[in-house]
Amino acid sequence: MLRPMEWKSGKLRLLDQTRLPEAEVYLELEDYREVASAIREMRVRGAPAIGLAAAYGLVLGAQKLQTPNRQEFLSELAQVKEELSATRPTAVNLFWALERLWQVAEGEPDPSSLKARLLEEARCLEVEEVAAEQRLGEYGAQLIPDGATVLTHCHTGSLATGGYGTALGIIRVAHERGKRVKVIADETRPRLQGARLTAWELKRLGIPVMVIVDGAAGSFLSRGLIDCVVVGADRVAANGDTANKIGTYSLAVLAMENGVPFYVAAPWSSIDLSLPSGSEIPVEERPEDEITHIRGQRLLPQGVGVANPAFDITPHQYITAIITERGVVREPYVTKLKELISG
Amino acid sequence: MLRPMEWKSGKLRLLDQTRLPEAEVYLELEDYREVASAIREMRVRGAPAIGLAAAYGLVLGAQKLQTPNRQEFLSELAQVKEELSATRPTAVNLFWALERLWQVAEGEPDPSSLKARLLEEARCLEVEEVAAEQRLGEYGAQLIPDGATVLTHCHTGSLATGGYGTALGIIRVAHERGKRVKVIADETRPRLQGARLTAWELKRLGIPVMVIVDGAAGSFLSRGLIDCVVVGADRVAANGDTANKIGTYSLAVLAMENGVPFYVAAPWSSIDLSLPSGSEIPVEERPEDEITHIRGQRLLPQGVGVANPAFDITPHQYITAIITERGVVREPYVTKLKELISG
Repeated sequence: MLRPMEWKSGKLRLLDQTRLPEAEVYLELEDYREVASAIREMRVRGAPAIGLAAAYGLVLGAQKLQTPNRQEFLSELAQVKEELSATRPTAVNLFWALERLWQVAEGEPDPSSLKARLLEEARCLEVEEVAAEQRLGEYGAQLIPDGATVLTHCHTGSLATGGYGTALGIIRVAHERGKRVKVIADETRPRLQGARLTAWELKRLGIPVMVIVDGAAGSFLSRGLIDCVVVGADRVAANGDTANKIGTYSLAVLAMENGVPFYVAAPWSSIDLSLPSGSEIPVEERPEDEITHIRGQRLLPQGVGVANPAFDITPHQYITAIITERGVVREPYVTKLKELISG
Repeated sequence: MLRPMEWKSGKLRLLDQTRLPEAEVYLELEDYREVASAIREMRVRGAPAIGLAAAYGLVLGAQKLQTPNRQEFLSELAQVKEELSATRPTAVNLFWALERLWQVAEGEPDPSSLKARLLEEARCLEVEEVAAEQRLGEYGAQLIPDGATVLTHCHTGSLATGGYGTALGIIRVAHERGKRVKVIADETRPRLQGARLTAWELKRLGIPVMVIVDGAAGSFLSRGLIDCVVVGADRVAANGDTANKIGTYSLAVLAMENGVPFYVAAPWSSIDLSLPSGSEIPVEERPEDEITHIRGQRLLPQGVGVANPAFDITPHQYITAIITERGVVREPYVTKLKELISG
């Protein structure tokens, strides 16, 4: 079985997503700064996976701390937390996971237990996340008709999550339940997660997949070749507005225009009820070379500027349903999401 | 001055668009089969440029014919015409240009004049096309507000046309008339004509340009950062439905959803009144390796399928206006386009 993220012998073992599909290279990280770099450089990416990697990063940071003094320990740990928080701004899972571990640290009166308690909580988070994805997958699979062709964007499979998948988890459950599902995967420029990672993972799972350029999705929708669109989420605001990989908003508009359901798969760890709407979600601007270069080769003429927002915001009115591990939510999201708080 | 296509000393001299922006390499073509290959391999591309290259290709084919017999000449020339016609199916300019030269050949009773008459007609076509683009540019520029940010897709500049440009020609005239225009160029996967060619040409012209991935256009439209969208056309049907580079349809839907005008720049040579609607326009499926590889390097896992339609159809109801050298046309296109037949 694929273990893209694993805590092993006091280290975080990570499958380097930037090297796929050519090479399966595992990183063994012992220092929280290495985890921060791996998140920043997208060696680990996908909202739930970022959250878990950050949690293990905090564990690594804690393990290096020497002080027996609880207050000093917490103050130094706060520094580590801050550095890990500063890696990427959009996926709320990062802040959510760090905050959960932080609460454990603050709530633990015995300094000698702190390191063990943090590791325990990170492991717990991972187990919970996988279980949540499987439940989410079960809920979502009920919405996928037998014989459906599903369009997806970016990559939301085992590499990007707790280990099962969110949008791809739904497709995976549908497939495992015997539904004949085909996937059309946007290649997802600039980093080609659809072409590289979604195609790679679906092929491993034995689910038929075909890759198209992002600009072709509209044509496939308008020709009636797509039965539903399923995407992941980096952050869902209280009103249902959803931040996800750049290009998602376009798919939502095009799906609605063509009467095709548009589903967002979001584990509870991706939902941020503290933000009233999507306009408050910070959108990361990624480095220019993601667009200007590919594999070290320059594509654009010298001296031409680029803009590279990594995410866009899909307003809730374009979203047919948000699928969580706590159930399937539809409009009005602003009340229906709140009803799920109790779990 | 840039001469991307030039008839010189009995040869067709072509700037190889596949090598830009890294290298300015000119091809010197002496045989019509070389012209057919150059069109097929997209060394020359863009609807009006394809038409002109094919016309010169027919001239090259005619020049090699030895027979003094008029009927034999025409019959062999018909073979050449057929081979050139079979290169690419979507842009109507190809068939239109070949047909115009064919009419000249058929109408010329003196076999000794045939070769000269064909060359004369091809040159005439080129001169007409450039003049048409400049007129089209003047009409279109009136629709561009001073200070506008214009979104465009693919490449419609001097390389792609008779030598001035269609959608880029409009931007060029607006710039030359002193309007402050900024361009946002979709990179335009799979062949990156926006990133490579539009950026290169606008930089040469001194017009500010910024490149984005195709998936980001929706986000820019929704954030109010685009004042209008201007694209070219490979074929416009009688009802205004427009075939253009894959991704164009998505832009049209997203523009309408956000209240942004969406303009199609189409010289008369791109308009095909023989087809009642866009559903009759043949859409070319291009080779898989345009998506699976970039510069010889494989991007996708082995064994994963791709679909690569090169064009999509934008239904007329999403088009704010079609800009031709004969004037600006709006709904109902089905009557307004016919009114322009007389020129």
